[in-house]
Amino acid sequence: MAQVLYDFTAEPGNNELTVKEGETLTITNQHIGGGWIEAQNSRGEIGLVPEDYIELFTLRIFSSDSVVALGLPDLFLSMCPSFSASNGNDPWSVWNADPSGGSNNNWASNPEGTQTGKTAPDPWSSVSQGHPQAYQGPAEDDEWDDEWDDMKSTGGYAESESGDGGGIQRGGAHATSMKISLNKFPGFSKSGPELYLLCKQLTKGKDKLPIYIGEVGPVWFYPETQLDCVVADPKKGSKMYGLKSYIEYQITPSTTNRPVNHRYKHFDWLYERLLDKFGSAIPIPSLPDKQVTGRFEEEFIKMRMERLQGWMSRMCRHPVVSSSEVFQLFLTYKDEKEWKMGKRKAEKDETVGVMIFSTIEPEAPDIDLIEVDQKCEQFSRFTKAMDDGVKEILTVGHEHWKRCTGPLPKEYQRIGKAFQNLSSVFNSSGYQGESTLTDAMTAAGKTYEEIAQMFAEQPKKDLHFLMETNNEYKGLLGCFPDTIGVHKAAIDKVKEGDKLVATSKITPHEKVTMAKRVSVMSYALQAEMNHFHSNRIYDYNRVMQLYLEEQVKFYETIAAKLRQAHGQFTTM
Amino acid sequence: MAQVLYDFTAEPGNNELTVKEGETLTITNQHIGGGWIEAQNSRGEIGLVPEDYIELFTLRIFSSDSVVALGLPDLFLSMCPSFSASNGNDPWSVWNADPSGGSNNNWASNPEGTQTGKTAPDPWSSVSQGHPQAYQGPAEDDEWDDEWDDMKSTGGYAESESGDGGGIQRGGAHATSMKISLNKFPGFSKSGPELYLLCKQLTKGKDKLPIYIGEVGPVWFYPETQLDCVVADPKKGSKMYGLKSYIEYQITPSTTNRPVNHRYKHFDWLYERLLDKFGSAIPIPSLPDKQVTGRFEEEFIKMRMERLQGWMSRMCRHPVVSSSEVFQLFLTYKDEKEWKMGKRKAEKDETVGVMIFSTIEPEAPDIDLIEVDQKCEQFSRFTKAMDDGVKEILTVGHEHWKRCTGPLPKEYQRIGKAFQNLSSVFNSSGYQGESTLTDAMTAAGKTYEEIAQMFAEQPKKDLHFLMETNNEYKGLLGCFPDTIGVHKAAIDKVKEGDKLVATSKITPHEKVTMAKRVSVMSYALQAEMNHFHSNRIYDYNRVMQLYLEEQVKFYETIAAKLRQAHGQFTTM
Repeated sequence: MAQVLYDFTAEPGNNELTVKEGETLTITNQHIGGGWIEAQNSRGEIGLVPEDYIELFTLRIFSSDSVVALGLPDLFLSMCPSFSASNGNDPWSVWNADPSGGSNNNWASNPEGTQTGKTAPDPWSSVSQGHPQAYQGPAEDDEWDDEWDDMKSTGGYAESESGDGGGIQRGGAHATSMKISLNKFPGFSKSGPELYLLCKQLTKGKDKLPIYIGEVGPVWFYPETQLDCVVADPKKGSKMYGLKSYIEYQITPSTTNRPVNHRYKHFDWLYERLLDKFGSAIPIPSLPDKQVTGRFEEEFIKMRMERLQGWMSRMCRHPVVSSSEVFQLFLTYKDEKEWKMGKRKAEKDETVGVMIFSTIEPEAPDIDLIEVDQKCEQFSRFTKAMDDGVKEILTVGHEHWKRCTGPLPKEYQRIGKAFQNLSSVFNSSGYQGESTLTDAMTAAGKTYEEIAQMFAEQPKKDLHFLMETNNEYKGLLGCFPDTIGVHKAAIDKVKEGDKLVATSKITPHEKVTMAKRVSVMSYALQAEMNHFHSNRIYDYNRVMQLYLEEQVKFYETIAAKLRQAHGQFTTM
Repeated sequence: MAQVLYDFTAEPGNNELTVKEGETLTITNQHIGGGWIEAQNSRGEIGLVPEDYIELFTLRIFSSDSVVALGLPDLFLSMCPSFSASNGNDPWSVWNADPSGGSNNNWASNPEGTQTGKTAPDPWSSVSQGHPQAYQGPAEDDEWDDEWDDMKSTGGYAESESGDGGGIQRGGAHATSMKISLNKFPGFSKSGPELYLLCKQLTKGKDKLPIYIGEVGPVWFYPETQLDCVVADPKKGSKMYGLKSYIEYQITPSTTNRPVNHRYKHFDWLYERLLDKFGSAIPIPSLPDKQVTGRFEEEFIKMRMERLQGWMSRMCRHPVVSSSEVFQLFLTYKDEKEWKMGKRKAEKDETVGVMIFSTIEPEAPDIDLIEVDQKCEQFSRFTKAMDDGVKEILTVGHEHWKRCTGPLPKEYQRIGKAFQNLSSVFNSSGYQGESTLTDAMTAAGKTYEEIAQMFAEQPKKDLHFLMETNNEYKGLLGCFPDTIGVHKAAIDKVKEGDKLVATSKITPHEKVTMAKRVSVMSYALQAEMNHFHSNRIYDYNRVMQLYLEEQVKFYETIAAKLRQAHGQFTTM
């Protein structure tokens, strides 16, 4: 039995079932795959329903007083992505509706940018958004949907204002699945962290994640050599007698130097696994949006590849993520068999959701709740403030991109043309000794035309990277409200400790355990924040240097060109 | 007796008389001055009427077959400014309605330019135009009107589109006086040149203007040292117990190095005299428009002085103008008495209008009519084409000015602010070792704010001069249709020679005389064109050099500032 969470309208001919919010369904087949479940309604009609649109009643056991219904793998899988997202208590609630984060740039398209000959198209201008009501879970192995539908569905949203993406969601099943909030259930188990705070037995063995105290405070364990990989060589493949096509990328890790091939859907699968496993402790940024399109196929592929590279590099740089079994599988599987086996194993992993904290072992004394709370508050404030700052840069940068590729080159072109036109007029004067001036004026005019071209092409060389970096950070920062939400919920629970003991909801011993575990969580958050800060400093240093370097070159080249033009005039 | 040419509505309390086009008036006092005449209408009402709005019936003698009614000074004075302006046959007819030429820049004001802190106001943005129907001839000695009324009457026109100034006129009496066209009279004497072509006796004596054949063809006689002068030190004076104020400029000629003082109205008087005397042969550019205003009094005075300086320098550079008695009087009068006597003498000068050609003596053989015609056509084409080119630069330059002082600095300011804001956020991270990055980002942000300021101020340093020069040339080129019109009319008349002889309108000897005289006119035109070309080459060489030099400095300074900002980031 299941309850329908949101209205869903069946697409004719697709074997789907129209359902209404609040309706009760009987699950007839839970193993359809591709984000679908087969269900029967009260009128006996059977059809497919997106699994994220319904809530299995098995979850109800959590609404009772018992929170220790652990050990049921299915349950874990259903619950783990459900940490306190979208509960309305989050101060950054605008983000909750925007889990796509980085890729969710529904900037207005640039009508001016296409005027001059070879302008650099604003790669963010044609980003369209999956409409929440237009949910179409990708059918298994449907590469057409995976890779190409996006290109057809562009437009319509491209012109919408660049807000904070409120209400717009990433269109995949995994994203909407985060909407199934456990907070609807009253009582003690209203949020996920208790699973970890009160669980009887912590995971033992090889999967332990140590935290050390470094110079900057708690830090993850960093391997001697940092993993990296190269995403390259996109190749178009096809299936079903050429009816369906897909792009396969070659990923070469720095460790093995042996390339593996993956399609976008495999990246998406990896993202799902990483989000399930680490999402409570580590912000896992969304993949580049499916809807990122270019005007041309090559542009689209290039842009997606560039962003997949950015995403993979960021994952490689994370010591916890990069050393995880699932990530290693993705990078180093040897054959189809190993890949499929590894895939199955990863999908059955039980240490997911808040249970990731059970594997963390800080080599440091417990922190008291006040400090835990302060740290959490501080991180919350910082990430919120940085999100604002990053968005401001993106807005300003977008405006600048439009001006640099639109009106500015047109204006310099017109200045160039005006000089050249006057030069031709002068040339027709019939007056002798005119040629030095007319040649010089023509050269000056051509110089301004070159400058026009330079303006149009410059954003690709510098602003692009500034935008991409900030865009990546926007995505990353968009994950923090969820991550921090888990911590806040845990802190709140620990704060209630005495009351829970008094009302016999927990034992005094459990209260002590909770305090210890929230301290472990805090170490994890601090290690993660320190990781974030060190990466941030590196990334912004690098991108600002690159930006300014290119800007210096740009203005120096203009000055040099103008100096040359100046030299052609007679000195009197 | 006089006929009313245009409707005129009396201003109450000003002793004026409302008249209708076509009405007949009796002149009761022709010597009111200041562009006014006292007249009586058919109902016996007496009042003041602008003298340009009426046509004295004495002119009717020209409508008869006789064209040799020469020797009447009054007649000359009335006729001379009337060369073929506004006859509708002129191919550049849009200009005829725009005798103000250079100063007639009714560009739209720049609403964006005032946003940033210290933007350079577009000096052309607030130029308003005297409305042709709003004619108010300045009363003699009314300095208030002369100097200050403009400042009050700004606005209203400032927002009008930057067209070619069609239909908008310089608001002075002298300008509108050019509207009294003799072309309304049918028959032989429909244009002025016959006055010269057929006059019995040519002027003799010291006032001869020789033309030599130089390397580039016919040239005026150039003195060894070129006259120049400095217009400086504007002083506010007042009259009538401080009720009326005016500005007096100090003009110091390079010859005497002794300063003389003149008010705007004296410049205006000089302009009138030069136009009367040389206008048929030499384009006399209008004075800077009275309506040129600035936001502030000092700005207004500075701008007018700069333009008066430009006008005076151009007049000084002209060998014929600068050596003329009236120009020398203006520059070198010793006292009030000498000034007043010289003024009276100049006003009585009879060698004005087309009669200036009677003083020209080319030291070269006569040119045949075909060549005369070809040269005239060539100059006509060239000046028209250059006028288009100059106007294009003014339009483009105006757009560029607006962008440089409006949206561009705002954008760079926002970029600067965005970097600084992100830097403050980073500063609040609590992470150690952050300061190098945050300091560098703050510096980068401040650099972009400086660049914003530089953009806003740059047009004053370079574009301003490019605009002023082109503006001056626009004014100068605006005089050519009239000057060339006189030549074309003369050529047409000579072409009719045989027919005129056949119908006994002229004698065969007069036909020969006309051919000789049109050759003299052609030499004058060629000398003038060669003067124009040599000045043009000098002026454009100079202004383009200045423009590019400042542009180079500008971009180099930006590059240097950014390089410094770049240097603050850690090299990794």
